[in-house]
Amino acid sequence: MSLEQLDCALERWTQLLGPEFVSSDPLRRRPAETATFATCQRVPAILRPRDRAQIQQCLRIANQCGVPLYPVSSGKNWGYGSRVPPADGCALLDLSRLRRILDFSEELGYVTVEPGVTQRQLYGFLRQRGSRLWMDATGSSPECSLIGNVMERGFGHTPYGDHFAHVCGLEVVLPEGEVLRTGSARLPGSTAAAVNRWGVGPSLDGLFSQSNLGIVTAMTIWLMPEPECFAAFFFRCEDPAGLPPLIDALRDLRLRDVLRSSVHIGNDYKVLNGLEQYPWQQTGGLTPLSPEHMAHFRKTRTFGYWNASGGLYGTRAQVAEARRLLRAALRTQNGKLRFLSEKKLRLARRFAKLFSVVMRWDVTRTIDIVEPVVGLMRGVPTSHALASAYWRKRMPIPADPDPDRDGCGLLWYAPVAPATGESVAALTALASDTLLQSGFEPMISLTLLTPRSVYAVISITYDRQVPGEDQRAMDCYFRLAQRCTEAGYHPYRLGIQAMPAAAATETYSSVLERLKTVLDPNAVLAPERYEERAATLSADAKNRSYAQAQLRS
Amino acid sequence: MSLEQLDCALERWTQLLGPEFVSSDPLRRRPAETATFATCQRVPAILRPRDRAQIQQCLRIANQCGVPLYPVSSGKNWGYGSRVPPADGCALLDLSRLRRILDFSEELGYVTVEPGVTQRQLYGFLRQRGSRLWMDATGSSPECSLIGNVMERGFGHTPYGDHFAHVCGLEVVLPEGEVLRTGSARLPGSTAAAVNRWGVGPSLDGLFSQSNLGIVTAMTIWLMPEPECFAAFFFRCEDPAGLPPLIDALRDLRLRDVLRSSVHIGNDYKVLNGLEQYPWQQTGGLTPLSPEHMAHFRKTRTFGYWNASGGLYGTRAQVAEARRLLRAALRTQNGKLRFLSEKKLRLARRFAKLFSVVMRWDVTRTIDIVEPVVGLMRGVPTSHALASAYWRKRMPIPADPDPDRDGCGLLWYAPVAPATGESVAALTALASDTLLQSGFEPMISLTLLTPRSVYAVISITYDRQVPGEDQRAMDCYFRLAQRCTEAGYHPYRLGIQAMPAAAATETYSSVLERLKTVLDPNAVLAPERYEERAATLSADAKNRSYAQAQLRS
Repeated sequence: MSLEQLDCALERWTQLLGPEFVSSDPLRRRPAETATFATCQRVPAILRPRDRAQIQQCLRIANQCGVPLYPVSSGKNWGYGSRVPPADGCALLDLSRLRRILDFSEELGYVTVEPGVTQRQLYGFLRQRGSRLWMDATGSSPECSLIGNVMERGFGHTPYGDHFAHVCGLEVVLPEGEVLRTGSARLPGSTAAAVNRWGVGPSLDGLFSQSNLGIVTAMTIWLMPEPECFAAFFFRCEDPAGLPPLIDALRDLRLRDVLRSSVHIGNDYKVLNGLEQYPWQQTGGLTPLSPEHMAHFRKTRTFGYWNASGGLYGTRAQVAEARRLLRAALRTQNGKLRFLSEKKLRLARRFAKLFSVVMRWDVTRTIDIVEPVVGLMRGVPTSHALASAYWRKRMPIPADPDPDRDGCGLLWYAPVAPATGESVAALTALASDTLLQSGFEPMISLTLLTPRSVYAVISITYDRQVPGEDQRAMDCYFRLAQRCTEAGYHPYRLGIQAMPAAAATETYSSVLERLKTVLDPNAVLAPERYEERAATLSADAKNRSYAQAQLRS
Repeated sequence: MSLEQLDCALERWTQLLGPEFVSSDPLRRRPAETATFATCQRVPAILRPRDRAQIQQCLRIANQCGVPLYPVSSGKNWGYGSRVPPADGCALLDLSRLRRILDFSEELGYVTVEPGVTQRQLYGFLRQRGSRLWMDATGSSPECSLIGNVMERGFGHTPYGDHFAHVCGLEVVLPEGEVLRTGSARLPGSTAAAVNRWGVGPSLDGLFSQSNLGIVTAMTIWLMPEPECFAAFFFRCEDPAGLPPLIDALRDLRLRDVLRSSVHIGNDYKVLNGLEQYPWQQTGGLTPLSPEHMAHFRKTRTFGYWNASGGLYGTRAQVAEARRLLRAALRTQNGKLRFLSEKKLRLARRFAKLFSVVMRWDVTRTIDIVEPVVGLMRGVPTSHALASAYWRKRMPIPADPDPDRDGCGLLWYAPVAPATGESVAALTALASDTLLQSGFEPMISLTLLTPRSVYAVISITYDRQVPGEDQRAMDCYFRLAQRCTEAGYHPYRLGIQAMPAAAATETYSSVLERLKTVLDPNAVLAPERYEERAATLSADAKNRSYAQAQLRS
């Protein structure tokens, strides 16, 4: 792309959107060029269209002038690249002004939204209407776009936690500006547009998730009816070797639908990371956190080596039966199982001190830990998770956390394992070893998102303001990615720095390339995004990307 | 395609597969040119490859010689076209020799199969191993291919009834002979190939269902663990206007996951059709069946205007609670709710007569009706449904029913409605009216396949040997299709005669065409299969197809 091309595009975009919705001055572009790890991509402009028609026009201009666009819904892709495009020189297409809720049905349990609709907005919408429907929230931030998260195949904590499995009827603007509707929504006058995702003929929805083949401008999301009864459960494993039997027991309960929602398991590092910042004083400034310190925190903060939590949903009798089955399944395991009903939690909030005495359980601290977790199980968005990005920072967590702005270092690697104790144990051992070797605390969360699979999220959390840390973290990331993929644990989602390095087979790359060619002949939409290169190229690409990452830091 | 091209292809295919696996003599081709309604497509040859490598070679030859191929797994696509290709002149690629079960896990609940693996084969495989896993069976026939059914997005009766939602990791031979793997199965050495369907990057599975973009040669299907307790329920509606409140009540139970599996509702005609052949004697040979005769059968055979059935799965306590909730939900409705536990059914089988006296319920006839239905709820394949194709035949149902061979007329139209009483009532009224006007009994089954959608299957059942009936049935079919789509009830699946007539939007058609062009540049794979034309063409196409259908009959 030449400067001439950029000028051509900027002029037309400005004419289309108005000067207040096109930014090209360096100061305002800077935040869009900043992630929670080292990047060197430049973003020449930020466009903020008002509606679908303007998006279509923006794309047409992009094609005419040969300037690529990178769409973000809310741009909260922390740990994976924030708003930064994987390729250099893309103008940012910020969709946050498209904030309409287009359709809603209390009866059929769905809502149709635009890309700018955030978790907070939908949550407020439902509460305001007195709806008896629950949304599923991802833990990231209330300001996250629903569509942005779904299209990255993010996940949540209720029975509707596998987000991409609970959406229907996409409206997609194709790279050349045409509008495509998928599923039943494409059928003229369909009464099933919001309820029947397959439609008739090939199902195209999958093409637009984790891809650069189109911009999703509307989507129906299914909502679950509020259950009569809800209870949370917490299990802490007192044995470092307790993970495999725990996974096996939980898989069985998930397969039998006793546990209808994903179960979340955090290791000790992950829990501590959620509770407080790095204990600089106690450790005398040394990193990583020593096993002795970790043991101390496990004891004083009362958490285990592995800490599972999940929700039980249903009628009173259904929840009681689920409690019984869960208790039976975990009976032989070395750990503590606790239940927390909504009533208990309400009471606990009000009588925390008295409760501690009566129940012989220090609930004050527990409430701090569990309140946002339990909220997520009920679809309540929380900003709690953001604070954890400040782990290694020496500043206190600000009232309005912004990891990009504050130089929080965060790299997420999220491999998937089959839900067997053996597999998950092998993966976590490998991850712990890799991170500790690099001097980072191995914070690991495991989510039994489906009955058969565990989505791990491994955080490399550091302080970008410490010289050399960007480089060290990125080295660690690529070492981890290499070891995991060699062992057969591939990620469910990619950070922008990993996209060119991912190892595809030749046929897959060739098919993707062919699809891209016919849908985006000028390659103007999000170049490099999830564009994997063939395995034969991948060693090369890996080195290239690795060298780039080194350059960037 | 010229005769020269065909000769070229036949020679090479014969050389590849051996003469015993290539048939081109008219007598052996005839059955492949026969469906349960009028068709005029000729099938110049039938190829029976042994394995994937031979399929790849068959496709390469098809490309070289310019002769199109139409793949069938088992070819039991009754009511939608059997083995007949939508386009004239396609050689049939019969995949029934690929009968390997490639992988199986009792622990993770899955099986990986080739296209020739039938319901019977998998059921036998599981029983023989003493597996505690259940498959989900479709009602069609034990000889149905699992892959064939899944790729048409067929459905079953257990909690895994939405077949396409319960498969993972396709192996696809593309039209030019390359092999593509999807989801996690495409990732080198992935441990999650059989459990994580999304993989990373765009999800391509949907492209190969109801399409002509590739041949699925292997697929993982998830299996459910046998529950501790199972019970079936039956509800018969004594009020013709009882359908809307019944749908609304069942939707709520589905949304709340009290009913974990699809609920099936048959109207009176559908139930009678499942029980016996047309009562020629009682009606003095007159058709369609009069309301008076229908009333007589409802009374003497003890079924209602609408007859719902479904399964309850779980522990003893879970099933007991589901019974309580179901009873409460249907309390105010005019009808009879019955439960049938496995124990009761076993007892009933053994002591049918005694039982009738004790329970004051004529179980003998009921067992005849419910046994295959209850079997399907437990994933047991049945050939029961095949008999219903002989409804208007004057011959007795043979021991080895074959609707194609025996001139059974059967056209299925399968529109989807949102799961609201109002919508479903409007659809069924429209369907009943259309069929009765044409002199056919409106046999309707409704399946609450998902909590939010109802899949209707409307059967036009007739005797192909009665002159003029083929034509009359096809007229009725297209009238029904037109009225349904005008009212917003589009089909979930198409018969071969409807494929050119389906109304697509311009962008959708254009996208599909572009995908076809890059994946199948010589258009050798299943031409016309789910190739919808744009709306602007569709009136035209409809007339064309209609005229063809008239010609054929």
